[in-house]
Amino acid sequence: MTHRGMIVPIGGAEEKMRDPAILSRFVDLCGCQDARIVVIPTASSLKSTGRNYITILRRLGVKHIKVLPFETREDCLRADWLAVLEAADGVFLTGGNQLKLSTTLGGTPVTAMLRRRNAQEGLHVAGTSAGAAVLGEHMIAFGNEGSTPRADMVTLAPGFGLTNLAIIDQHFRQRDRLGRLLTALAYNPEPVGIGLDEDTAAFIDADDVMTVAGSGAITVVDPSTMTYSSMDSAKRHSPVCVLDIRVHVLVDGARFDLRGRTAEPPPLPPRATRRAQARKP
Amino acid sequence: MTHRGMIVPIGGAEEKMRDPAILSRFVDLCGCQDARIVVIPTASSLKSTGRNYITILRRLGVKHIKVLPFETREDCLRADWLAVLEAADGVFLTGGNQLKLSTTLGGTPVTAMLRRRNAQEGLHVAGTSAGAAVLGEHMIAFGNEGSTPRADMVTLAPGFGLTNLAIIDQHFRQRDRLGRLLTALAYNPEPVGIGLDEDTAAFIDADDVMTVAGSGAITVVDPSTMTYSSMDSAKRHSPVCVLDIRVHVLVDGARFDLRGRTAEPPPLPPRATRRAQARKP
Repeated sequence: MTHRGMIVPIGGAEEKMRDPAILSRFVDLCGCQDARIVVIPTASSLKSTGRNYITILRRLGVKHIKVLPFETREDCLRADWLAVLEAADGVFLTGGNQLKLSTTLGGTPVTAMLRRRNAQEGLHVAGTSAGAAVLGEHMIAFGNEGSTPRADMVTLAPGFGLTNLAIIDQHFRQRDRLGRLLTALAYNPEPVGIGLDEDTAAFIDADDVMTVAGSGAITVVDPSTMTYSSMDSAKRHSPVCVLDIRVHVLVDGARFDLRGRTAEPPPLPPRATRRAQARKP
Repeated sequence: MTHRGMIVPIGGAEEKMRDPAILSRFVDLCGCQDARIVVIPTASSLKSTGRNYITILRRLGVKHIKVLPFETREDCLRADWLAVLEAADGVFLTGGNQLKLSTTLGGTPVTAMLRRRNAQEGLHVAGTSAGAAVLGEHMIAFGNEGSTPRADMVTLAPGFGLTNLAIIDQHFRQRDRLGRLLTALAYNPEPVGIGLDEDTAAFIDADDVMTVAGSGAITVVDPSTMTYSSMDSAKRHSPVCVLDIRVHVLVDGARFDLRGRTAEPPPLPPRATRRAQARKP
């Protein structure tokens, strides 16, 4: 039976030491201590990135960790590395530059295998920052800051294509990126926009329902209700008019159905906890 | 049984009077004179566009032609127009501005129906110029002219998503667009680039094999062999270095397999014709 694995974009700067809630949840998902986790540090220009994730994942008890440092497109044809990927339960793409990921891995057996194994064999794929941006069919390659959408303020490119239901942006509140996400959606209000704060992740399940985890928020921008966009007549660099966009700000435990476009608040804590909280002065 | 209809991007300025080979082939595909063909003139700012196509299609013998002039996103919810689309054998998207198409129809029941009926019910979908650009998952929204790829010279946006195997560009030789197509592919060499000359079409069948028709050429840019791209380090407006791109120039009758990435020349003419041609002075 085929089943899709989780798709887990993370907004960057996820907590790694004190309370690594997101990474810990990803590890549990992949099979806890016996999980075979592959780290792909290609986006990063730092040699230490792969090693650092080995340290963090070991601290979470993971026994089988491999780093596959694809540097060239030729590396992506290495049978020994592809065999490691074929056996993985989870793949983690580090931060850095998303164009490094797409230019190195795009159109190679690596991305074909990630797509196939995620869609059919339950491989869980997480990525942080650049690693999050690249997960979807439409990737924000680069853009400008600011909260007002302007024609031409964002450059989209094909990503790894695990889902085409959402365009993902990261470091969202920290880098004032609402404008560029709105611009991306104003071109064509077909996908949903997912703006991930730092230390915040979307766990997107096989039914395309995402659950928020982490200390920040996810800004969901649903343009399906849009009644008007001036993008087709806007001059370059000019602000763009968009009407009737629906926005949700979701925190830990809240959910959003990417197909049905419905949001749910976090579940109520169990009664005992609620009473305990109510009793606090 | 579900089967996918043809996807037919046309490079613009297709011959409409003397020898309308492309339009005539599209009509045959849809069922000849009994075909129910829907024209969507949304991309165009001219009121006459829909009427003109009625005249051309009538001259080709088509009896059932409807024009659905979606102007607003509200129009895209009209049950009477959706019913017409539901009954169509073929849909034709006229030229104009592709952002008018994506901002008006994107994320509405119209695009959802086009995708579903094309993928499952054999609906044939053709588009010329802007109507061609919008057919794929990745659409070139706008860009600069010139044959050298430069970072930031092209703006991609989500299209109608009938296929994600190719990025389509049109008026290709006429407007010197190799640079912007190479730029789009240099971000991520996953899709194939299809550069359509004017009066030239790609008939993409259910197996994703495309056959060329028309008086010009199709430039196929296959980046799967790419060994290097400097896009991840290129400065804005700077030229981008890409190595080992494979290019085919295909003319009427030639074929290209978008999955296998193999090209075939046009078939030899039948022997009799060849002898007749050889005898010419």
